[in-house]
Amino acid sequence: MKVALGGTFEPLHEGHKKLIDVAIKLGGKDITIGITSDRMARARIRSVLPFSIRAENVRRYVIRKYGFEPEIVKITNPYGKTLEVDFEYLVVSPETYEMALKINQKREELGKRKITIVKVDWIMAEDGKPISSTRIKRGRLTDTAESFRFRCFPAGRARQAC
Amino acid sequence: MKVALGGTFEPLHEGHKKLIDVAIKLGGKDITIGITSDRMARARIRSVLPFSIRAENVRRYVIRKYGFEPEIVKITNPYGKTLEVDFEYLVVSPETYEMALKINQKREELGKRKITIVKVDWIMAEDGKPISSTRIKRGRLTDTAESFRFRCFPAGRARQAC
Repeated sequence: MKVALGGTFEPLHEGHKKLIDVAIKLGGKDITIGITSDRMARARIRSVLPFSIRAENVRRYVIRKYGFEPEIVKITNPYGKTLEVDFEYLVVSPETYEMALKINQKREELGKRKITIVKVDWIMAEDGKPISSTRIKRGRLTDTAESFRFRCFPAGRARQAC
Repeated sequence: MKVALGGTFEPLHEGHKKLIDVAIKLGGKDITIGITSDRMARARIRSVLPFSIRAENVRRYVIRKYGFEPEIVKITNPYGKTLEVDFEYLVVSPETYEMALKINQKREELGKRKITIVKVDWIMAEDGKPISSTRIKRGRLTDTAESFRFRCFPAGRARQAC
């Protein structure tokens, strides 16, 4: 049983946490969390915390809640390891669902079996629209969003939430 | 932690089994499986096995694979218990996803929190299209589909697969 999930995880919000929760329920410790490289992340979102900090936030969430060290890999393209590894489940958000379909299409072209896609709907923000990193980054959700609770900043910066 | 899933489950195919598998991984024994009443099922599919047999097929699958007696309820409308019970997860197929969105919309109108929807993509049939009960019932998938393995027939009928 192997479960994969991926994303930029910046800021780590309730939707991400739900995604991680579902992945761990499906795969236990046997999960692989792909986190985009800075170059990949910044192609979509101009300002993003470095990979090391984003990865550390995810790692802390898993350790605090589940007590184990998750496998985190840096991904430099949207497929990550999904074309090489025969994962049992691919846990995705509404934002990454289309990519999951592309992954399965590509796998089929390569003669590999499709991975079962499990889409977890985001928790909705107060305005009824989904919380997504992009919306938060674009300033369309305020700092009051609970999602900011797990945002960490490098030592020395003003805000230290973790 | 309470997990709900629902459907007609006729014939019980690989997609249904995957749905049940995910629900049990998320909720353990704390799952509620809603199965449509004969009246409700027959409004969509003309010929359908009685509720008692459909429920028994689902029950046997869970007992054989997971060793516990699942909670199965007969549903007489598409909402089932989802407006009364605060389930943690609603596990749905691509076929029932739209209904899940309606459930959350209705819950919001009632001032209740939304249930996290987990959509599990069907396993694909050989023609690349999703396996669905409706397609099987309409004869668009042949009897060779593995999905027929769990189809039960009342005593005395020619085919007895369970």
